[in-house]
Amino acid sequence: MSSMGFDRILGGVCAPQGFLAAGVACGIKEDSRPDLALVFSEVPATAAGVYTTNEVKAAPVLLCSLRTEEGAAQAVVASSGNANAMTGKRGLADAVAMATAAEKALGLDEGLALVASTGPIGRYLPMENVLRGIEQAASDMSPGGNTDAAKAIMTTDSYPKELAVEMEIGGKVVRLGAMAKGSGMIHPNMATMISVITTDVGLEHGIMQHWLEQAVEWSFNRISVDGDQSTNDTVLMLANGAALPEEYEMSREEAELFFNALCWLTANLAMSLVKDGEGVTKLLRVVVNGARDDAEAVTVARAVAVSNLVKCAFFGAQPNWGRIAAAVGSAGVGLQQDKLTIYLGDHMVAEGGEPVPFDEEELETILRRDEAEITVDLGLGKGSAYYLTCDLTTEYVEFNAGEKS
Amino acid sequence: MSSMGFDRILGGVCAPQGFLAAGVACGIKEDSRPDLALVFSEVPATAAGVYTTNEVKAAPVLLCSLRTEEGAAQAVVASSGNANAMTGKRGLADAVAMATAAEKALGLDEGLALVASTGPIGRYLPMENVLRGIEQAASDMSPGGNTDAAKAIMTTDSYPKELAVEMEIGGKVVRLGAMAKGSGMIHPNMATMISVITTDVGLEHGIMQHWLEQAVEWSFNRISVDGDQSTNDTVLMLANGAALPEEYEMSREEAELFFNALCWLTANLAMSLVKDGEGVTKLLRVVVNGARDDAEAVTVARAVAVSNLVKCAFFGAQPNWGRIAAAVGSAGVGLQQDKLTIYLGDHMVAEGGEPVPFDEEELETILRRDEAEITVDLGLGKGSAYYLTCDLTTEYVEFNAGEKS
Repeated sequence: MSSMGFDRILGGVCAPQGFLAAGVACGIKEDSRPDLALVFSEVPATAAGVYTTNEVKAAPVLLCSLRTEEGAAQAVVASSGNANAMTGKRGLADAVAMATAAEKALGLDEGLALVASTGPIGRYLPMENVLRGIEQAASDMSPGGNTDAAKAIMTTDSYPKELAVEMEIGGKVVRLGAMAKGSGMIHPNMATMISVITTDVGLEHGIMQHWLEQAVEWSFNRISVDGDQSTNDTVLMLANGAALPEEYEMSREEAELFFNALCWLTANLAMSLVKDGEGVTKLLRVVVNGARDDAEAVTVARAVAVSNLVKCAFFGAQPNWGRIAAAVGSAGVGLQQDKLTIYLGDHMVAEGGEPVPFDEEELETILRRDEAEITVDLGLGKGSAYYLTCDLTTEYVEFNAGEKS
Repeated sequence: MSSMGFDRILGGVCAPQGFLAAGVACGIKEDSRPDLALVFSEVPATAAGVYTTNEVKAAPVLLCSLRTEEGAAQAVVASSGNANAMTGKRGLADAVAMATAAEKALGLDEGLALVASTGPIGRYLPMENVLRGIEQAASDMSPGGNTDAAKAIMTTDSYPKELAVEMEIGGKVVRLGAMAKGSGMIHPNMATMISVITTDVGLEHGIMQHWLEQAVEWSFNRISVDGDQSTNDTVLMLANGAALPEEYEMSREEAELFFNALCWLTANLAMSLVKDGEGVTKLLRVVVNGARDDAEAVTVARAVAVSNLVKCAFFGAQPNWGRIAAAVGSAGVGLQQDKLTIYLGDHMVAEGGEPVPFDEEELETILRRDEAEITVDLGLGKGSAYYLTCDLTTEYVEFNAGEKS
């Protein structure tokens, strides 16, 4: 057992007991790549969900946010290659039809399938293909189907993203598994992303929803690739109790262990979304300390994380901290500029609102690495926060100038 | 006289009577390009100013915002190549020393010179060079020095930006002149920009400040190049009454004419800042109609104007309206997505929250032009607004990855 109290294992969403998965190609994407994933729990599960705060919500988001309020689900159908967003009533009917098809194919009661979609906005789904895909996925699904499922939700991701961990709670080995996809439109409130999280611990719906929201807040809500927020962001979690029933009362330590493992999973998936962002060459970690409170620190960290000029400077490995200062000042939190201190990595470059001499060549060498850290101290209090972002590259622009999605 | 009631003339800031200007190279920039501009009124003038809302304010902004509250000035010294921002007390002393040097060289009372700077953040000014430059500019200045001055405030601008107009008020020919510089960090609240506006109409300070704020709101506050807001944005206006004294009471029509001319000047300068933005190939006009009020429309227009994905799509001439919908939804104004309608140029591409079929090739042809228009109708009320932005290009990224400023 690692020092964290949990160990990383293989198996993604199928690592927890009682979960099967499949990924198939049904012709939503034009290039015959896999585009429909199914995750299924053999026993009824508690379900929680967190969704985009964009006011243009895709049809599956509208449907699922109602269903996870109910708190029960046994399957997730996730399609890629078409967002089913800005598709009106027909789009909503299509999302319901996807769920109904999954329920029929899996022999579930009505209302127990959840739906997520990702891809270009403003097109109707090719429903004949989708429905055929759901039937095929239901007959293909297996305890080893996790990676196929992770591949089937990819859009511009360059590799499938899945993780799983195990730990001991109540004398039982219990597991958490997850998959996720990025990789453009990645911004604060979750980005064009889908993540499905599974566990064989039984959880009460209210607690689970609360834990999931908190884990998302500290992970998927702290990443930005391009500042654009999607219509489809969806994080779903199913807890089926196959290893540990909901009736088991966790001790405070056990609950913390489980919650920490959940946060570790989502934080690591979030980081992989940024690293695999479109055209990204560098991961940037923005740390803000000395804010009046954590919320203020998040606001400042986000302002730095979304600055195109800061992101371009890091693409070029330029220790251009003046752009960071300007981004901090634009956050509007009530700054005292004579208390502002900025570090690039371990190097202090500005202190108390004034420049500190530094070795430019040495810093450029540091900034040429794959990862860089910006630390900003506002000198106002004890609030702190971090944010993950990436550089803005010519490849990002080329990619998004050419893409029709 | 044009149908607008005023005519465009040559002469920039020197077009109004009693204004002299100069631009010199004093060694702030490393490459010996001009970097210090002086604008001087032969008679005392009323002064107004509008400044960045960034909380990291450059020293000259801190100084000038106090001086324009007093409402009198006779000279503006504007330097480029160094922002004198994040320079603490020493920076503030340097800004004061610049003003004092100008006052001495021009024989003015203390407090009558204004100062503006633009360039990289976080470096102390080379004051010996700056003070020598001010003396040289004071001896060089002439009624034909306007273009030299406009050149001396350029940083990454590719050409000097100046405009002037004349009209008749109270039986007199009166004039307005202006110069401005961009061209990165151009965002809502005025961007890395400096503009100096002159007029030979005499104006009461309160009215003039109000008119200037309104003209800035409709022009420099409605443009975005990269979403980054600068520490140095400054718009200064001097009114010296050389053609028409302050005592003359304008009729309502005359006041409107003058104000319209001022708005025309600032709007056209704002447009030229966007067009000359770093790496820009295309001007985008975002129009939002049907908002509950104008302020809501501005919020939505800004969200579209700063979306990297929208800007990349236009660089690639892709009619990718789904990204526009996502940007609209991210504005958080309380949308009803089934009332959302989007046009690219004259082509309706989405109506009532659903896609409208269109000829993709025809639209791509339209989007390949130098200018494009996005119109969004929220269907909620009568509020409207526009915003000017540009495409996000590989050249922008290359430029800002290589620049040390």
